[in-house]
Amino acid sequence: MEFDHLFTEQLDALKDEGNYRIFADLERRCGAFPRAKNHGSGEEVTVWCSNDYLGMGQNETVLAAMKHTLETCGAGAGGTRNISGTNHHHTLLEAELADLHGKEAALIFTSGYVSNWAALSTLGGRLPNAVILSDALNHASMIEGIRHSRADKRIWAHNDVEDLDRKLSELPEDATKIVAFESVYSMDGDIAPMEEICDVAEKHGAMTYLDEVHAVGLYGPRGGGVAEERGLMDRITLIEGTLGKAFGVMGGYITGSAPLVDFVRSFASGFIFTTALPPAVAAGATASIRHLKQSREERAQQARNVAEVRRRLDAIGIPHLPNPSHIIPVMVKDPVKCRMLSDILMEDWGIYVQPINYPTVPKGTERLRITPSPLHTAADIDHLVNALHSLWSQCALARAVA
Amino acid sequence: MEFDHLFTEQLDALKDEGNYRIFADLERRCGAFPRAKNHGSGEEVTVWCSNDYLGMGQNETVLAAMKHTLETCGAGAGGTRNISGTNHHHTLLEAELADLHGKEAALIFTSGYVSNWAALSTLGGRLPNAVILSDALNHASMIEGIRHSRADKRIWAHNDVEDLDRKLSELPEDATKIVAFESVYSMDGDIAPMEEICDVAEKHGAMTYLDEVHAVGLYGPRGGGVAEERGLMDRITLIEGTLGKAFGVMGGYITGSAPLVDFVRSFASGFIFTTALPPAVAAGATASIRHLKQSREERAQQARNVAEVRRRLDAIGIPHLPNPSHIIPVMVKDPVKCRMLSDILMEDWGIYVQPINYPTVPKGTERLRITPSPLHTAADIDHLVNALHSLWSQCALARAVA
Repeated sequence: MEFDHLFTEQLDALKDEGNYRIFADLERRCGAFPRAKNHGSGEEVTVWCSNDYLGMGQNETVLAAMKHTLETCGAGAGGTRNISGTNHHHTLLEAELADLHGKEAALIFTSGYVSNWAALSTLGGRLPNAVILSDALNHASMIEGIRHSRADKRIWAHNDVEDLDRKLSELPEDATKIVAFESVYSMDGDIAPMEEICDVAEKHGAMTYLDEVHAVGLYGPRGGGVAEERGLMDRITLIEGTLGKAFGVMGGYITGSAPLVDFVRSFASGFIFTTALPPAVAAGATASIRHLKQSREERAQQARNVAEVRRRLDAIGIPHLPNPSHIIPVMVKDPVKCRMLSDILMEDWGIYVQPINYPTVPKGTERLRITPSPLHTAADIDHLVNALHSLWSQCALARAVA
Repeated sequence: MEFDHLFTEQLDALKDEGNYRIFADLERRCGAFPRAKNHGSGEEVTVWCSNDYLGMGQNETVLAAMKHTLETCGAGAGGTRNISGTNHHHTLLEAELADLHGKEAALIFTSGYVSNWAALSTLGGRLPNAVILSDALNHASMIEGIRHSRADKRIWAHNDVEDLDRKLSELPEDATKIVAFESVYSMDGDIAPMEEICDVAEKHGAMTYLDEVHAVGLYGPRGGGVAEERGLMDRITLIEGTLGKAFGVMGGYITGSAPLVDFVRSFASGFIFTTALPPAVAAGATASIRHLKQSREERAQQARNVAEVRRRLDAIGIPHLPNPSHIIPVMVKDPVKCRMLSDILMEDWGIYVQPINYPTVPKGTERLRITPSPLHTAADIDHLVNALHSLWSQCALARAVA
């Protein structure tokens, strides 16, 4: 086609760098998670890199709620939230989320990406003299939302409360200050010093905007996230989360005071001008949240498996980033080797761990990101560790110093 | 809460203008569309403003595909497309969409909003010397995508090919020109002079970016949209569409040459960093597209109902915008009256038509936007026309001059 050279040029550069992405064509096997069929090879594989962290995507209660709602309400919502698209299942889900985080109100979006992008661009764009103080490792959706808001922005060093304090001190009295950060950072798995961040924000009269997408369902006695675990939910102005990771379904949300949520509802382009989530998706998410509010078994078994994988990797000297979360980043630090390891794991071992390359992580920090779930068995863990042990020798990769 | 005054101030202004939005809390009754339960009143209502234009949200084949896929693959995708989230149902859907539009490839997004925003911001942001020529009435998602790209931008008068020609002439030779427009404009229901736009774009060596969200499933022998109906698909560089309106499910997409689609896949933040659509949603959409590729009955009955509503409105002098599409905008031109009419229709007549106010339409052009579906009966049409007839007298609203 006439314009194709414009596209192939930049794609070729990506390929030369080793950063061109090839998607694994999978078919997850409901009832047999973490197994999936790999449509590339036709073989069954064990998935070790899913963000369906607790396997709630195959939970019977969730699936029953979704099937029932398909039968009673149909497939799609049929409109934007304003124009015929609000379904009672959305209303119920928003009430459930507000309760989960101890907030007055909640608002759902089609994805976590959109919730961050829409909320931050609306707050930054419409509040008087807004300045957003953004953690240096915030997710792309937050960065794009801040950028789109055209608000004044300060980037503070990752998880560095002193730097945040300094940057807040430099701002004028009349600025509307918004401190934006995550609890669990997806790629390194480290967790923010949340209490200290709240202290500093309060000292300077700043709002706090917290992304808990890798924590909701997983931390806290009811799965309310790290802020719940640490008893800090009431000190956070806005908590953002997802329904597509530990809750196993799809969608994103914000929670906060009623006026805050109404503000985003009333002014956010990415909320107003988009078709609402299917009622069945909302009903499935509600069922999942309710389940994880009272059941701790999934979280407990996940924690046991995470600890076991870490212990076994340490025993054979496979380098992984230390962190207090459920995410185990095995560092390779080279995009081509990272892809090669992933390919061999898939082809020779039936293990699927996607290579994580730029732009998801900075160049030179390529990794295999392993996310043990409660559904992985002791045999699955043995198999994974044996595979990595063999590969590390075969490919002459560096071991961690004991 | 501490910051609430910042939010309530702007919300109060919205309320004073009559533009504050109240969502109808509905529960669509699958199998009985267009009926829904209104959870506000507890009464049954007939929905006259859905974008599930053909009622495919209750189509048996669509629902069966979704239920089957829930049972076999589970609820969510479990990751981004790159990190474990690609399911074989996504691959099948993309092949189906490429075939629908006669293109080499397709790429799905979580919504039509995101597909426009992500594709336009990536094209505008990454192509050398990009200039986007945007129709003055393009949808918010396109405007935000163009804005986010920071590319040079020219707005041409709505559907005015001469103005487009003039604006293209003013651009330097080496600019990458992208003409962005829609086929059916959602709120006025008018249709672009597509062939003339293609002529002018080709004359200037410009790409064409076409949003067909209000046309796919509805126009053309296989539901490929207005470009299919007019035999112009091969002259459009990129066709964007939705799975959430006539196809009755959820999600958005682009189609085009393989390198174009690979380019957006590889560089668009809003595609890369977001959880993939649930496999069941993808399977439902695929079933819907396949159905509407071979069945014309839904489109034919919709066209009959649209013509009948128009004829009846004309007979009693209710003013509506003339257009060649399935959208009937009944003009009220006042936000408070528009809301009042909608409230009376709901409370006294069991008819739900959402008032369309700013920012969805310009202030002073407030309207009731009526979308007859193939499922509305002759009795439904009688009831709607009687209600409007009565209301127009009761509220002393202007009639159209015959």
